Amino acid sequence: MVETLAEHVAAVGHEMEQYRGGGKVADYIPALAQVDAKRFGLCVLTCEGETAQYGDSWMPFSIQSISKVFTLTMALNRLGEDLWKRVGREPSGSRFNSIVQLENEAGVPRNPLINAGAIVTTDAVLAGRTIQEGIDDIRNTFRTLADDKTIDFDPQVARSEAETGFRNYSLANFMRGFDNLNSEVEDVLQVYFHQCAIRITCKQLARAGLFLANQGVDPLSGNRIISESATRRINAVMLTCGHYDASGEFAFQVGLPGKSGVGGGILTVVPGRAAIAVWSPGLNEYGNSQVGTMALERLATRMGWSIF
Amino acid sequence: MVETLAEHVAAVGHEMEQYRGGGKVADYIPALAQVDAKRFGLCVLTCEGETAQYGDSWMPFSIQSISKVFTLTMALNRLGEDLWKRVGREPSGSRFNSIVQLENEAGVPRNPLINAGAIVTTDAVLAGRTIQEGIDDIRNTFRTLADDKTIDFDPQVARSEAETGFRNYSLANFMRGFDNLNSEVEDVLQVYFHQCAIRITCKQLARAGLFLANQGVDPLSGNRIISESATRRINAVMLTCGHYDASGEFAFQVGLPGKSGVGGGILTVVPGRAAIAVWSPGLNEYGNSQVGTMALERLATRMGWSIF
Amino acid sequence: MVETLAEHVAAVGHEMEQYRGGGKVADYIPALAQVDAKRFGLCVLTCEGETAQYGDSWMPFSIQSISKVFTLTMALNRLGEDLWKRVGREPSGSRFNSIVQLENEAGVPRNPLINAGAIVTTDAVLAGRTIQEGIDDIRNTFRTLADDKTIDFDPQVARSEAETGFRNYSLANFMRGFDNLNSEVEDVLQVYFHQCAIRITCKQLARAGLFLANQGVDPLSGNRIISESATRRINAVMLTCGHYDASGEFAFQVGLPGKSGVGGGILTVVPGRAAIAVWSPGLNEYGNSQVGTMALERLATRMGWSIF
Amino acid sequence: MVETLAEHVAAVGHEMEQYRGGGKVADYIPALAQVDAKRFGLCVLTCEGETAQYGDSWMPFSIQSISKVFTLTMALNRLGEDLWKRVGREPSGSRFNSIVQLENEAGVPRNPLINAGAIVTTDAVLAGRTIQEGIDDIRNTFRTLADDKTIDFDPQVARSEAETGFRNYSLANFMRGFDNLNSEVEDVLQVYFHQCAIRITCKQLARAGLFLANQGVDPLSGNRIISESATRRINAVMLTCGHYDASGEFAFQVGLPGKSGVGGGILTVVPGRAAIAVWSPGLNEYGNSQVGTMALERLATRMGWSIF
Repeated sequence: MVETLAEHVAAVGHEMEQYRGGGKVADYIPALAQVDAKRFGLCVLTCEGETAQYGDSWMPFSIQSISKVFTLTMALNRLGEDLWKRVGREPSGSRFNSIVQLENEAGVPRNPLINAGAIVTTDAVLAGRTIQEGIDDIRNTFRTLADDKTIDFDPQVARSEAETGFRNYSLANFMRGFDNLNSEVEDVLQVYFHQCAIRITCKQLARAGLFLANQGVDPLSGNRIISESATRRINAVMLTCGHYDASGEFAFQVGLPGKSGVGGGILTVVPGRAAIAVWSPGLNEYGNSQVGTMALERLATRMGWSIF
Repeated sequence: MVETLAEHVAAVGHEMEQYRGGGKVADYIPALAQVDAKRFGLCVLTCEGETAQYGDSWMPFSIQSISKVFTLTMALNRLGEDLWKRVGREPSGSRFNSIVQLENEAGVPRNPLINAGAIVTTDAVLAGRTIQEGIDDIRNTFRTLADDKTIDFDPQVARSEAETGFRNYSLANFMRGFDNLNSEVEDVLQVYFHQCAIRITCKQLARAGLFLANQGVDPLSGNRIISESATRRINAVMLTCGHYDASGEFAFQVGLPGKSGVGGGILTVVPGRAAIAVWSPGLNEYGNSQVGTMALERLATRMGWSIF
Repeated sequence: MVETLAEHVAAVGHEMEQYRGGGKVADYIPALAQVDAKRFGLCVLTCEGETAQYGDSWMPFSIQSISKVFTLTMALNRLGEDLWKRVGREPSGSRFNSIVQLENEAGVPRNPLINAGAIVTTDAVLAGRTIQEGIDDIRNTFRTLADDKTIDFDPQVARSEAETGFRNYSLANFMRGFDNLNSEVEDVLQVYFHQCAIRITCKQLARAGLFLANQGVDPLSGNRIISESATRRINAVMLTCGHYDASGEFAFQVGLPGKSGVGGGILTVVPGRAAIAVWSPGLNEYGNSQVGTMALERLATRMGWSIF
Repeated sequence: MVETLAEHVAAVGHEMEQYRGGGKVADYIPALAQVDAKRFGLCVLTCEGETAQYGDSWMPFSIQSISKVFTLTMALNRLGEDLWKRVGREPSGSRFNSIVQLENEAGVPRNPLINAGAIVTTDAVLAGRTIQEGIDDIRNTFRTLADDKTIDFDPQVARSEAETGFRNYSLANFMRGFDNLNSEVEDVLQVYFHQCAIRITCKQLARAGLFLANQGVDPLSGNRIISESATRRINAVMLTCGHYDASGEFAFQVGLPGKSGVGGGILTVVPGRAAIAVWSPGLNEYGNSQVGTMALERLATRMGWSIF
């Protein structure tokens, strides 16, 4: 008897029940530290529009670094291939906020999915506009992609990020010193902190990322979001760089392009088939959702969705 | 009108004619330096057994680092998951022969596709056997996989590698100091230098690597070479780590798991479909075949074979 | 016939005439770039009060990093041995503005004579006071030590430093993220940029540094500036760390504790005997005054003043 | 009442009695691990020939890295200034056996007092001679300098060093790959391991190093060992680089050029006055004799011998 997608998702969800609460919740800002460690949500959305959800997939969480994929998409649409003069596409082999590589490589971040790289893509999104215009563009992009006007920033998170973001100020000033930022450090970071502070549910996130599974066209609206070749490249960067210094591990275990955030979410793309969003706040030693990664590994195996 | 595989391969081959001789031939040992820069060969072998070739696909070249994929396969079959205690699976973010990372990470190489990592997998292949037994096992593995008894080492290349291999001696002694080699440095390196010195044609190489495109089973013989999950993991490691510090670039451009060698060859896997071997001796700035990479990018695009 | 100090200084000065204009003048801020490359001044002041001068020793130049020695003295007087919990005393083996070491060592700079370390000592000088109080204290310290009320900041230099000091903002934010700064980044840097912007002549500089040659007591006023043991330690740090990644070179060639600045000045201490200040704007490849270093080497040899 | 040198030495020795046994004895080879941790010897020899000893100053210990100073002296006498093309004179800012810096700086060690640098100076000593001639030259140098024909190698230590010296094999092969060794790796290391294996007493060591306190002339025999300027430079290198990544610390605390070894010995030079040898096997966290460093700090303070 063949199981349906809904049955597979439910089965994985049930298997995860015993692991709820595993890992360590990020605590560098209060808004993240207060989240209930036992939350677990999972949502799969196929290119045909089939949805399967489990658990807390309806509950908003802080998107954090997952937003870097969307900022990259926006920056590529604005700058095209020129973006790659300002940011690389190689795995960094280092922590998400490392500055060592920047010094050795003249202020050009290794890839757009580490903090330094996302500050560059944010600068590209901001270019020639006011902070408010940049912030609004990001919010509207999420609302359009997820087809949901309720998506918004968590102002408290954005403020906390700014107040504790010394490392990001350090990275931004460092790159500014190499002329790799065009706007003022403070302006770029205000927009950067906002893009980290989007509140989103698993369901909304899977919807927003679905175009990545369909060669750049949102299959439900029919809108082209970005070119086919750029889509492939975003997916390639997600696979090689999406999980900081555990990117190889994620490729090894799950076998799909993905991007994690310290809020405990992971967006995963099954090229040609579906987008998956999972959320569980406890992080493993590499800063990726512990239960979320486990769920993705099992789901990918069950569905035969590994790209390898 | 739909083009056949043979037509696509021929078309890509013709497009490459104008680029023949591009890049810089490796010259650190005489046997490599003497190769004609204008050679170009391409062979695609599908899981159904369909073959399409172009140019010098019949001509043997030095396998060099591509052999690391096969040594990894052999080591996984001998040690299983325990291998991963001795070698990681993360991109290194460094040159193929870097020793910096080893010092910072206590003698455990980042992945099995950089030199240090392949010395560890070679040690695993050698364990408990004589040098000759280790060497014979490697030769027999290639002969069996490629179904061709003529495959052999180039003794001159193996000797040259040993004579100029100071960096590899350095890496091996470094790891031995951390107890990450079980056999004597000299013994491990003798076997290591031999696995680099296999002479192989594009046609043989595509045949030898076909099991990687078919979940670990050689589709033409029906023999299981390695488990399905291990196969996926080898492919994942190839994608994230197969081209040294240009691994992200290859994933970005070609979108397929692959492994290059300084002899100018590249083995590429199209999961579920085919193995591709390409050879052109001129290397780009990262040490990967310049014309070979270009051919793979075009072929992958034509066939729609990117995994992303 | 024994030459007098004045004769030795004159002889070295004359030898330097042919080299005037050698090296490359710092040009990262306009105020430095406009300085005449051919300037050369030299002043020796002995503990007995004997002065010997040559050339442009009467002309003010920008003190730049030489001020770090005085900020260190002030910080030691404020914090005592506790200062060494926040900054090390080892050579860095890196460029003056490197951030790599900071990341590897949890935000504790290697020594107080690189930029990061001097930002920490500036923070110690500022602690509990307003920016203006901190700035005034530094100006007064120089005026008192040099016994010259005319010493002042160059406001244009201070402003230029602030406008182009992205790397210093990066370093300061980085350390703030490790809680190794107590005041706000902006406040500490305003004071830091001012201490770099002191305008001083060779004669004033030798006078201000004389206490370092006399175990912490200004031999001309009789005032104790700092303890004997702290003085020795400041001199030791100058010897091992005073010239960035060419500190060993300076110890090797000159054999005396010294501190250079990108304005082209060098303060050198002859323990028990004298302070030497030299100035020539052209810098060598390590960022130290080219002609100034040469003059010091010859003077130290002539006088037999090497401590080795 | 003025104390004599003998009284100062005795006083320091008595103060050290309570600390005997402190620190951790090196245990990477059996011959070192078996040494009694409670040993403590001290010998001061002035340029006038006055000797003052305390404790186990008559007992031979393994010279280990202290020999690097003598190998440097021999290499400078053979190659002159050309030596500095092959090895630098800057502090490394790294562990004694680090290979990271070598990779970043093309196989040129930072200074001759870290392992890599001493392998280069050993290669210079060996050049054009057999292993036995090189070894004999080193032994004879020590015998001549110390005026004692009984000084010899400990063959067991030399053998153990060779058997466990993987890191040194790694360093040597690494540099050979950059053409910075002229002899075969195995030959250079045989000589290197022997120079580490000299057995020497505090009394012999102070005698052997006395020329460094007297501008290159052995004051007791009147023989010139090396030029005056080279002597100053050896002392400068000892001060900036003599204690690995705690060189700044030693300069800060003791204020004299010195070189330590993992056998627990330290040779210290008081320019113009005396040589001091101290021995106590327990090492501090940086690999330098814990009680020996303390004794030197106190003796230097008592005698007013700091060069700062």
